[in-house]
Amino acid sequence: MAAPARSPLARPLPELGTVEGVRLGSAEAGIRYSGRTDLMMAEFVPGTTVAGVFTRSKCPGAPVDWCKAALPHGVARALVVNTGNANVFTGRAGVDAAQATAAAAARLVQCSASDVFVASTGVIGEILPYDRITKALPDLYTRLSPLSWADAAQAIVTTDTFPKAAVREITIGDTPIRIQGIAKGSGMIAPDMATMLSFIATDAALPQSVLQQILSEAVDRSFNRITVDSDTSTSDMVLAFATGRAGNAAIEDAADPRLADFVAAIRDALQELALLVIRDGEGATKLIHITVTGAVSDASAHKVAMAIGNSPLVKTAIAGGDANWGRVVMAVGKCGEPANRDTLSIAIGGVWIARHGMVVQGYDETPVVEHMKGEVIDIQADLGLGNGHAEAWSCDLTHGYIDINGSYRS
Amino acid sequence: MAAPARSPLARPLPELGTVEGVRLGSAEAGIRYSGRTDLMMAEFVPGTTVAGVFTRSKCPGAPVDWCKAALPHGVARALVVNTGNANVFTGRAGVDAAQATAAAAARLVQCSASDVFVASTGVIGEILPYDRITKALPDLYTRLSPLSWADAAQAIVTTDTFPKAAVREITIGDTPIRIQGIAKGSGMIAPDMATMLSFIATDAALPQSVLQQILSEAVDRSFNRITVDSDTSTSDMVLAFATGRAGNAAIEDAADPRLADFVAAIRDALQELALLVIRDGEGATKLIHITVTGAVSDASAHKVAMAIGNSPLVKTAIAGGDANWGRVVMAVGKCGEPANRDTLSIAIGGVWIARHGMVVQGYDETPVVEHMKGEVIDIQADLGLGNGHAEAWSCDLTHGYIDINGSYRS
Repeated sequence: MAAPARSPLARPLPELGTVEGVRLGSAEAGIRYSGRTDLMMAEFVPGTTVAGVFTRSKCPGAPVDWCKAALPHGVARALVVNTGNANVFTGRAGVDAAQATAAAAARLVQCSASDVFVASTGVIGEILPYDRITKALPDLYTRLSPLSWADAAQAIVTTDTFPKAAVREITIGDTPIRIQGIAKGSGMIAPDMATMLSFIATDAALPQSVLQQILSEAVDRSFNRITVDSDTSTSDMVLAFATGRAGNAAIEDAADPRLADFVAAIRDALQELALLVIRDGEGATKLIHITVTGAVSDASAHKVAMAIGNSPLVKTAIAGGDANWGRVVMAVGKCGEPANRDTLSIAIGGVWIARHGMVVQGYDETPVVEHMKGEVIDIQADLGLGNGHAEAWSCDLTHGYIDINGSYRS
Repeated sequence: MAAPARSPLARPLPELGTVEGVRLGSAEAGIRYSGRTDLMMAEFVPGTTVAGVFTRSKCPGAPVDWCKAALPHGVARALVVNTGNANVFTGRAGVDAAQATAAAAARLVQCSASDVFVASTGVIGEILPYDRITKALPDLYTRLSPLSWADAAQAIVTTDTFPKAAVREITIGDTPIRIQGIAKGSGMIAPDMATMLSFIATDAALPQSVLQQILSEAVDRSFNRITVDSDTSTSDMVLAFATGRAGNAAIEDAADPRLADFVAAIRDALQELALLVIRDGEGATKLIHITVTGAVSDASAHKVAMAIGNSPLVKTAIAGGDANWGRVVMAVGKCGEPANRDTLSIAIGGVWIARHGMVVQGYDETPVVEHMKGEVIDIQADLGLGNGHAEAWSCDLTHGYIDINGSYRS
């Protein structure tokens, strides 16, 4: 398949610095593709804590199982990520591949294999030729550098049309703290209490339990609010690594007020990465920002927002520049959450089109038509039932999606 | 928008006869379209019983509300259906339009307005110009004929590329019985305990409660097992009318063995109509037949089957002729139903590709690739957990779907 053109919604990679205690790099291991990097490794200093959130798929890949088993130890020394093969639905061979990859990295880093986290993304159901990884790792290891973040972001992409990263600088107490994260994702995006691949590192010193709580809450407000195509991957994973090299004061509670800026920055960085994934949604030409208010609860609002964001009819209308608000009504009505036609109001681009069960008297479509030509389409649904609120992000459904997915394996 | 080309999966209209006690016809009322019929009326003899199943959308159209209110009376004298405007999300004006339409038909038939059933399909959110219907009805009424079934099937279509009907002839006891049904539907198809518009008539004599039970069970096994795009309409409706003119012996119980053939024929006819809807799925080029076995229950199997049928990634792979069984694994894993990767098996075209969590040794893709070139793609997933079983039908997702839905209102 010819590589799809760069998304019209793409953003340039931010300037990536270093995170003290992290060295990383990439290599061409030839797992499936040739002429591009397909293997990424990161090494973390001893004492690095790790937190993770994983796909809720009932058919997770062997790397997801591996990382879930490793996570309770709470520490990480290395991360190895390959593209081209997801190592999913590969039975005993998949378990062996994850184990062998971790063991090869552990030998280089001189740590236990259970301190190595592995992730794979690509085609499902084919045996991962892990010898290509274990052969490539020793040379890759000699080339690890604190500066290779951009290379790492590039090495983990699959159908992505641009690499994705986010950077934040804040303080904990008086100590300057750096957060850098990378992500990949473009299709099979409907993380259900999980996400696509994303890896965040910080030099903050944080106990595993604190890092985990901050990460879980941030994922819930970012990656769990996006959808490209309603399809949840078998390989979704977000990992956060805290090296402790910044030397901030010890903090034992995620609710500690000294962490407020850090918590906000993690949320903000994950939000940025999640939106970059949507901006690279397969075939996407427009970003859809959905706000649901007036639901019976936040959880109900979230389900309604995702139903709107997942509706092929809403998404194709937006691709066509059509302010077809009736399809938003349809999506609200179909999702099974409490809703009442006669208290429902719909706005597009900030213009209330329908209120309380019918079109607004004298509705002028002109400003809405203008809004539909923009890059970000704002849809708001007020259910008029309670105080539940949620936001979600999606993208339009275009010919590009069909082109990309009709021939993915060829 | 140019009319889409006739679906490559289209079937010719069967030869339609008469159902004693039913007269029908169509007219050009100019509701939205010109140069085509957009209004259908049927008249039923006094004593006709009626059963109905409706959308579970929380934002149903005024015609759905009207019919739900009329149904408890249990009798029907007329049916009026318009296309071009769904009369959904139109507030008080929508209620008035349904009421005025029913009243106009009632004056012609000389019955109570509550004996008239109305249905509308088309754009959501625009006020239905019902005066065009009430003006067209008197002339249409003078032209009603027992022979106009094909005209009626044609008058109710919207984005459909071919009209849809099914005919069955069976006996109740020794009495010959005729069943004829028509349907429309092409997009916004994911009936959730409901269906698109479909109207069935029979000359059988059946109490309302018996007819309702038979219809509800048949809908559950037909229209509730299909999906085009996971979007549930605000206007879905199936109505069944039994005129009693066949003069069969009185039957008071749906489980009466004399009804066995009738029950089977209704199921069969609805199944045929449901598959015709999928064959006319917007942009469809292939029919997908999904069988799920080994689930913990039939209900669970149904949810898994619909998740496979709704997956954009499964549907685009099939459009591209790609036997991408990994996407079937993904769909099974994402849907939240009990599943276990290590007991899951997948077959396409009758060939078991993956068993018990990995690809079958020596899997030869050749016959599967051949199967993917056909018109009907068979996907089977065995979850290996229990005896739950379900079937579902879907269609592929192609450029045609994007073309049709990017400009529906223009």
